[in-house]
Amino acid sequence: MANHPYIILVEPQLCENVGMAARAMKNCGLENLRLVKPRENHLSDKALAASSNSPEILQNAQVFDSLSDALGDLHYVFATTARHRDQTKMVYDAPQAAAEIANHIAREEKCGLVFGPERTGLRNEDVSLCDAIINIPLNPQHCSLNLSQAVLLAGYEYYKTTIGQTKPYFETNHTRLADKEKVLLFCRNLEGRLSNFANFTDEAKKDKLVLNLRNIFTRAQLTEQELNTLYGIVNYLAEGDFSSDGW
Amino acid sequence: MANHPYIILVEPQLCENVGMAARAMKNCGLENLRLVKPRENHLSDKALAASSNSPEILQNAQVFDSLSDALGDLHYVFATTARHRDQTKMVYDAPQAAAEIANHIAREEKCGLVFGPERTGLRNEDVSLCDAIINIPLNPQHCSLNLSQAVLLAGYEYYKTTIGQTKPYFETNHTRLADKEKVLLFCRNLEGRLSNFANFTDEAKKDKLVLNLRNIFTRAQLTEQELNTLYGIVNYLAEGDFSSDGW
Repeated sequence: MANHPYIILVEPQLCENVGMAARAMKNCGLENLRLVKPRENHLSDKALAASSNSPEILQNAQVFDSLSDALGDLHYVFATTARHRDQTKMVYDAPQAAAEIANHIAREEKCGLVFGPERTGLRNEDVSLCDAIINIPLNPQHCSLNLSQAVLLAGYEYYKTTIGQTKPYFETNHTRLADKEKVLLFCRNLEGRLSNFANFTDEAKKDKLVLNLRNIFTRAQLTEQELNTLYGIVNYLAEGDFSSDGW
Repeated sequence: MANHPYIILVEPQLCENVGMAARAMKNCGLENLRLVKPRENHLSDKALAASSNSPEILQNAQVFDSLSDALGDLHYVFATTARHRDQTKMVYDAPQAAAEIANHIAREEKCGLVFGPERTGLRNEDVSLCDAIINIPLNPQHCSLNLSQAVLLAGYEYYKTTIGQTKPYFETNHTRLADKEKVLLFCRNLEGRLSNFANFTDEAKKDKLVLNLRNIFTRAQLTEQELNTLYGIVNYLAEGDFSSDGW
C-alpha cells in the first residue's frame, strides 16, 4: 500500500460512521485505516453499506487495543480537535497540516491523523501522544463535525497536496473558441444590419452601442459553433432565412 | 441575513441529506438554503435530527418549483458536477470557485451553489442556467460524494476565504516558551552532571554529545514550566532530590 497517511479512529461509537469515514478516505485517495477499540463491528452490513463501494478499506482495517499500539510504527502524527487542550503543542490549520504531512511522506516517514470518539473527541492523554494538533477552520459558533466529515476535510486537504495546482479551464463540446477575426466579422455583420435601428442614426450613440455590442460578444467567449448559431439567428430575424449556416 | 452564497439543492431525495447539508452549512457559516422540489419534507423529525442543532436553516429554507425560479434574484451561480457535460462553460476547482464567489460578494452580488439529486446529479438543462462549473478535486477513481459532503467541501472553501490566512501557533497551558538563556543554563547544568558519563571522558565525543543535547532541548521548544520539571527530574536522578523546583 502506498505511503499515504494513516487514518486512526479512536473508539468510534457507530459502525455507520466508520463506513462513511472509509468512503471519505476513498474520495481522498487514502486507504490505511486503523481502529482503536471500535464499539461496533466495522465489517457489519451497516458499515459496509455506509462505505459505498469501499469495502476493501474496512476489510484491511487494523484493530488495536490502545492508541499507543496504533501509533507504534508511525513517525509523525496529528491529533484532530476543535477544543483548546491546555497542552503545549503546535496547532496547524488543515492546509498547513497537509503540507507538513506531505513533507514527512516525502522523507518516507509514516504519518497519522487521529480522530476521537463522536461525542467526546480525543482524551487529553491521546493528544499527548501526538506531535501536533490540526484545527479545521470552521464557524467557531458551530464547529462540531460528523466524524466522517472531519476525515473528509483533513483527507481532502492532503489529497490537494498530491495533485499539484490545477487551473481553471474552459470545457467545450468538441468545438474551439472562435478567433477574434471571426468574432469581429460577426459583430460587423450585425452592426451592418442595424442601420435604421434607433440609436444608429445618432453617430455618438452609435459608437457607444458598437462598443457595447463588441464587449458583449467578446466577453461571452463564443465558440465557432456558437458563432455559427448566432449568424443563423441574426439572418433569420433579419430576413426570415432559416439556414443555420451563416458563414 | 448576510450576503453569503445560497445553497440550492435540486430535487433532493432524502430529508436526512437535506438536514445534514444544513449542518454542513452551519459549520461553514452559511445560512441561505433553497430547495427545488424536495421529495421529502425538509421539516420532518428526521431532517431536523440530521441538522444537529441547525433547525433555523431548515425552517428558513425557501422552496421553489423550478431551478430557474430559485436562481431568479441571484447574479452568479456555480453548478457542482463531477461529470464532463459536453457544454461550453468555465470549470473551476473548489478553491478557485470560492475566490470567484468572494469577488462577486464583495460587489454585493448574490451568489449560488447548485447541487443535483443524490443519485443522478444535475441535469444538463440545470447546468446551462449556471455561469460556471465547480469541480471538487478528489480521487478520480472514486469521486462520488454524499450530498452533504459536497456542500461541506464547497462551503469550507468559501469559509476559508472569509477568515483570511491563519498561521500555525503554539498552544501552551498558561506558561511561556523558555528564553534561550534559561534553556542554555539547563543544558550546562545537565552537562556539568555528566563529567563521568562514558563519552564525556573523550573530548571529541563530548563536544559532539553537547551539540546533540543542545539540539534536542532547543528543538523541543520547552516552556518555562517544562524546563522546571526537567530540572527537578535531573536533580532527582542525580541526587535523589525530589524537590520540583530546580531553579
